[in-house]
Amino acid sequence: MAATRRPGRNHLFIPGPTNIPDRVLRAMHVPSEDHRSPDFPALVKPLFQDAKMVFGSEAGTIIFYPSSGTGIWESALANTLCRGDKVLTARYGQFSHLWVDMAQRLGLDVIVQDEAWGTGADPEKIGQALRADTEHKIKAVMVVHNETATGVTSDIGAVRKAIDAAGHPALLFVDGISSIGSLPFEMDAWKVDCAIAGSQKGFMLPAGLGVLCASAKAIKASEGTAGGNDRLGHVYFAWSDQLKQNPTGYFPYTPPLPLLYGLREALECIKEEGLQNVYHRHHVLAEATRQAVAAWGLKTCAKEPKWNSDTVTAILAPEGVDAAKIIKHAYDRYNLSLGAGLSQVAGKVFRIGHLGDLNELSLLGAIAGAEMAMIDCGVHVTPGSGVAAASSYLREHPLTRG
Amino acid sequence: MAATRRPGRNHLFIPGPTNIPDRVLRAMHVPSEDHRSPDFPALVKPLFQDAKMVFGSEAGTIIFYPSSGTGIWESALANTLCRGDKVLTARYGQFSHLWVDMAQRLGLDVIVQDEAWGTGADPEKIGQALRADTEHKIKAVMVVHNETATGVTSDIGAVRKAIDAAGHPALLFVDGISSIGSLPFEMDAWKVDCAIAGSQKGFMLPAGLGVLCASAKAIKASEGTAGGNDRLGHVYFAWSDQLKQNPTGYFPYTPPLPLLYGLREALECIKEEGLQNVYHRHHVLAEATRQAVAAWGLKTCAKEPKWNSDTVTAILAPEGVDAAKIIKHAYDRYNLSLGAGLSQVAGKVFRIGHLGDLNELSLLGAIAGAEMAMIDCGVHVTPGSGVAAASSYLREHPLTRG
Amino acid sequence: MAATRRPGRNHLFIPGPTNIPDRVLRAMHVPSEDHRSPDFPALVKPLFQDAKMVFGSEAGTIIFYPSSGTGIWESALANTLCRGDKVLTARYGQFSHLWVDMAQRLGLDVIVQDEAWGTGADPEKIGQALRADTEHKIKAVMVVHNETATGVTSDIGAVRKAIDAAGHPALLFVDGISSIGSLPFEMDAWKVDCAIAGSQKGFMLPAGLGVLCASAKAIKASEGTAGGNDRLGHVYFAWSDQLKQNPTGYFPYTPPLPLLYGLREALECIKEEGLQNVYHRHHVLAEATRQAVAAWGLKTCAKEPKWNSDTVTAILAPEGVDAAKIIKHAYDRYNLSLGAGLSQVAGKVFRIGHLGDLNELSLLGAIAGAEMAMIDCGVHVTPGSGVAAASSYLREHPLTRG
Amino acid sequence: MAATRRPGRNHLFIPGPTNIPDRVLRAMHVPSEDHRSPDFPALVKPLFQDAKMVFGSEAGTIIFYPSSGTGIWESALANTLCRGDKVLTARYGQFSHLWVDMAQRLGLDVIVQDEAWGTGADPEKIGQALRADTEHKIKAVMVVHNETATGVTSDIGAVRKAIDAAGHPALLFVDGISSIGSLPFEMDAWKVDCAIAGSQKGFMLPAGLGVLCASAKAIKASEGTAGGNDRLGHVYFAWSDQLKQNPTGYFPYTPPLPLLYGLREALECIKEEGLQNVYHRHHVLAEATRQAVAAWGLKTCAKEPKWNSDTVTAILAPEGVDAAKIIKHAYDRYNLSLGAGLSQVAGKVFRIGHLGDLNELSLLGAIAGAEMAMIDCGVHVTPGSGVAAASSYLREHPLTRG
Repeated sequence: MAATRRPGRNHLFIPGPTNIPDRVLRAMHVPSEDHRSPDFPALVKPLFQDAKMVFGSEAGTIIFYPSSGTGIWESALANTLCRGDKVLTARYGQFSHLWVDMAQRLGLDVIVQDEAWGTGADPEKIGQALRADTEHKIKAVMVVHNETATGVTSDIGAVRKAIDAAGHPALLFVDGISSIGSLPFEMDAWKVDCAIAGSQKGFMLPAGLGVLCASAKAIKASEGTAGGNDRLGHVYFAWSDQLKQNPTGYFPYTPPLPLLYGLREALECIKEEGLQNVYHRHHVLAEATRQAVAAWGLKTCAKEPKWNSDTVTAILAPEGVDAAKIIKHAYDRYNLSLGAGLSQVAGKVFRIGHLGDLNELSLLGAIAGAEMAMIDCGVHVTPGSGVAAASSYLREHPLTRG
Repeated sequence: MAATRRPGRNHLFIPGPTNIPDRVLRAMHVPSEDHRSPDFPALVKPLFQDAKMVFGSEAGTIIFYPSSGTGIWESALANTLCRGDKVLTARYGQFSHLWVDMAQRLGLDVIVQDEAWGTGADPEKIGQALRADTEHKIKAVMVVHNETATGVTSDIGAVRKAIDAAGHPALLFVDGISSIGSLPFEMDAWKVDCAIAGSQKGFMLPAGLGVLCASAKAIKASEGTAGGNDRLGHVYFAWSDQLKQNPTGYFPYTPPLPLLYGLREALECIKEEGLQNVYHRHHVLAEATRQAVAAWGLKTCAKEPKWNSDTVTAILAPEGVDAAKIIKHAYDRYNLSLGAGLSQVAGKVFRIGHLGDLNELSLLGAIAGAEMAMIDCGVHVTPGSGVAAASSYLREHPLTRG
Repeated sequence: MAATRRPGRNHLFIPGPTNIPDRVLRAMHVPSEDHRSPDFPALVKPLFQDAKMVFGSEAGTIIFYPSSGTGIWESALANTLCRGDKVLTARYGQFSHLWVDMAQRLGLDVIVQDEAWGTGADPEKIGQALRADTEHKIKAVMVVHNETATGVTSDIGAVRKAIDAAGHPALLFVDGISSIGSLPFEMDAWKVDCAIAGSQKGFMLPAGLGVLCASAKAIKASEGTAGGNDRLGHVYFAWSDQLKQNPTGYFPYTPPLPLLYGLREALECIKEEGLQNVYHRHHVLAEATRQAVAAWGLKTCAKEPKWNSDTVTAILAPEGVDAAKIIKHAYDRYNLSLGAGLSQVAGKVFRIGHLGDLNELSLLGAIAGAEMAMIDCGVHVTPGSGVAAASSYLREHPLTRG
Repeated sequence: MAATRRPGRNHLFIPGPTNIPDRVLRAMHVPSEDHRSPDFPALVKPLFQDAKMVFGSEAGTIIFYPSSGTGIWESALANTLCRGDKVLTARYGQFSHLWVDMAQRLGLDVIVQDEAWGTGADPEKIGQALRADTEHKIKAVMVVHNETATGVTSDIGAVRKAIDAAGHPALLFVDGISSIGSLPFEMDAWKVDCAIAGSQKGFMLPAGLGVLCASAKAIKASEGTAGGNDRLGHVYFAWSDQLKQNPTGYFPYTPPLPLLYGLREALECIKEEGLQNVYHRHHVLAEATRQAVAAWGLKTCAKEPKWNSDTVTAILAPEGVDAAKIIKHAYDRYNLSLGAGLSQVAGKVFRIGHLGDLNELSLLGAIAGAEMAMIDCGVHVTPGSGVAAASSYLREHPLTRG
């Protein structure tokens, strides 16, 4: 869009939207179609089944919405909770903060456990809060699996254990927007009740299709009549309309056709690579990135290795250097799109997203670019050091598991 | 998707999604992009301006949502009304019915004026109801401009006159999903407060982008604090988040990039053809369709010429013939997608959508196909009669105004 | 490209380039690739095998050139003949004329049997000429299978019988550019030595890929050393370079990648529909077109039914009417592209191409358009008569064989 | 095409086909069109004009062929020379060798000046040969501008000076396949008579469109009748057919439509970036590559800096290391496509193509990949050294000239 043409590709290393495989873009290039035709369910029905695989679920129910991830978040809350219901959540970054904000605006009574940015959900504290709630007033526990703002992954399995240990019946809601399809996710094993994903991250699609996986318990909650007119009244995001039509292969309103075709192809990509290989690849590329950060002598926002996210690395700029300047320069000079620091860490971090459809040399190009941008902005970094460290690691660790 | 390949194109004559120009499909074939980049507003900002043109508005404010039209309907209600608020509406088809249903499910107090299917909103009756509402409890009048189910267009200008004549301050909400971009629409002249459109009709795009145009009065209503916790709590569809970010050329959450690029190209198409020519073309193609219907000796669902819709014609199958059978046969045998009859008129009508990117010969192919399907299904129609009538009309009436 | 946008699609009814299936266009949308990579043969090798199917050959050898059909014609002559060689051919239209012209320009000694335009090759006369050639100086018989200019198909099987009956060893060269992939073609059964096709007709691709199928006898002829420096010297079109590399799945020079991917998809389309169904469909659509012509009270250029082409119908405009005017008007007013009359029949005929990816309603749209254009230009035709006749025929004759 | 999906993009660093800008791929995604329509010349005519700019010519005439570059080579010879004509050329790599081979196969009498691979044309020696040819039997001097096999650029301006100094009337033919559009090319200033380009290099398109620019002198030579039947007989590649039709905006046979649309967009890209910026960018990226080579302690095939090509660098593998193994490993393990050594230098060099649509970070990814592949194959290279050197250079040298 710039006035003069920039040669070559943009190097997109934000934590989403992610790079879309060419074959997925091709699959989306389709004319309009009658979404009520007898042939339509042949496209739609397998999507519900195949998408579940990505959530690590066999028992769950998939619901798609023409929406961004924010809408799906709201759908999870609005279908299962009533105004004034108590929910428990932890906050440790911009996206966990936004979920708190949404819940409050919807009229829920939100118990917030604030954690240091750079750490994640504390299963111990969650367990405590639940045990203290002897009357079971807490209706849901909400956790952001991967906090995109800080590059921190929380341990959902441990949260589940804490809930079970407390013997508490609360629903477990997980924001998996920047994790599902990229990091191991075990909907069924972790007994997640609502898992939330967007098309533009691990699904390697443009934004525009929200994907939710709901447990039987969540769906049961959505059918409850107890709420009466205290229900959070929603129609577009009401599951009931979807659940009535989806089993026949149709939708209650016109679906975004290109995204359905794209999803079919993206799921095929995931199946061809193998979901475990996809996870492994994300881990290897993330670790290579962290090797580069270490070689630069810098620190990640994630305070301990256990918090490391395999989809995005937030890098702390050295004292006195404006991370926003590095980001702007990387874009202006090297056509490299990095993620900005948000809110508390604005100007302090820049983020490298390494999720979606990516391989070693693309990442090394980005690492080289980040390095160059830093040097140009006055950060003392040895030229080539990041690439040397990352590439040495990558030479030893193939993207595909033996 | 059929097991064996069907040669040639599908002939899509449902009242939306509509045919997408090749250049718009091309424009949508784009890699991912950072929606926070400095270049992004250069794409986004003109869209707000150009989309207003299609609504016939200079004073309004455009809001886009990744959503189908249903979501935008809800957004209009949720941002401006409070639970229990009284609204007045007329019902004369499946889509006006669904709007009533939504309003009720959201907890509004809906006054429904039922009109015969095949007719539309009665300005007279609306005026009466408003005059009777001396306390101004009615907060909004909701009208479906073009009832897609029956092929009926209501006179919004007349409704506005009735409201003004009653001296009533109610907001005027118009569902223009199957009219905006195809039929003359005068947001400012008619003082519409919320006009609702979807990407998959007159905008000639895939579904997935809801478009709303709000008047200053509607936006003011959305800011009111009076509602308190009686507000219809919504976050995703909250205008406030959009209104904060849009003026800078950004969105509160990841936008569906292909649809934005597609919208830019579609608006360019409309500008190149000329909006008045677009309206004229829709009228000519619709009238040609009606000439064919008359030549077949059949009747439209629209009870009087004044109700005729220029975007879709609902045709009554002769007594004793199942319209659904005609539709199925047209699809199976001739790869022609016609619109089905819904609800009250299921099995009684089939619909020819003639909106979107279309010209004479495509329409004549569809008319020929409808005729063939009818004959195959036992309807007594003279072969070629529909095409003869429609083509004679089309020869006399160019698509472009002199 | 027009200054103002024309709504809807162009209706393309020239005898090639033909309409390209959307899925083939999609398949061609590919990034560059190393045509020397280890993976490349996996794309290329099956193309040689599958393309043979379309020629009705198992014994032949396929050669592809980045070229239009004209280049492939030349390749056939240049690889097998020497300057001054005698060849026998029949001329009955613009394309058979152009082949004569090429042969003469290449320095061949061409015996031309002129036939009336509207008829085709006369096996009887060909047999006579061969029997008279007792010294076997005639090295090749060249026949245009389907004369695109007049809509005439010659009987290649009968030509083969005539050659055999004469006991003559001449090579048989067939221009199948507007027949192969659309009309039954039996390379092996007819013992054709060089069959020539272009990508832009029955293969449903853009122009740019010439396809040749050569018999063992033709390849043997190409290897002969007798020619010495009388050989028609060519390098680009030399088969030897191709025959050396093709078996390994590579090409002697950079291939047009999109066309290879497109070809793969187009061959898949043909296989899915079934080649016999493809032929049947072309026959049905052609016959429907001829029914329309008869209903209009007009005549085809083909003088007898046995000459009728199932890929293109050339229609004689009534005395006193300029066919070129009809064509221009059809394009300007109805966005219908018809084929022009060429050379001897310029201004006398207009042509409807009905080959490639097509179905009933598209054809009926074109028939309606041709009818409207004729009426507008003063031809006395009953409105709807063509569509009535064609559609009645089509209702009785499904595109797919029982 | 691999059995299991490879994540991310292929990194294409062969010296063509080159990376195609997304917008060019998009522009090529077009339905079929009548290449005889009244609107067609509006597409075609500007292409002739704009393509000339890329050749550095105002006086020349552009001719397009559906063909690879090899065909255009042949077209240059076949249209201007007669069998037995003497031509002078220098050979210093696989592509200059192939041109010799072609000229000989076409029956020309070729005087070959063999130069060491890694050097280029010697203007001095060319001048000598011409001065010695007092009878002006030499009809043409043929020079490969950029020898793709060795990464060597010859000085065409100096060759012209040598010809002029010798006062010799020979035509000057230049193979600019891997230079035109990437390296400064001055058709008019250098008085080149035939300059030859292919679509898949500097034009950033798929292969399939050959582009030739001919001087008035060359065209005059093509019209000569002196040749009589000693003319190299060609029809497809005859300029005369093109020259008759092109001025009206049409072609003598069906053109490859997608490539024409692609060319229009690619020329637009070049204009937007600025041709001088394009040249500068190629120089900067090439120099960065050479910095990496030096940092690795390796040598290029080009024997002196003056021979350095700015479109491709051929790198000599250290003694005892099989360059083919490095190339195969780079592809198999890192999805990096490098160019192989051909003929004399097979197994001795690997090549990095750095022409076409490219920027810094893509190149650095490839340099990192080449480095990793070398280390994996036992070459002693310091990890990160190539990227360090190249990136330090690139930081100092922006792609766009001040």
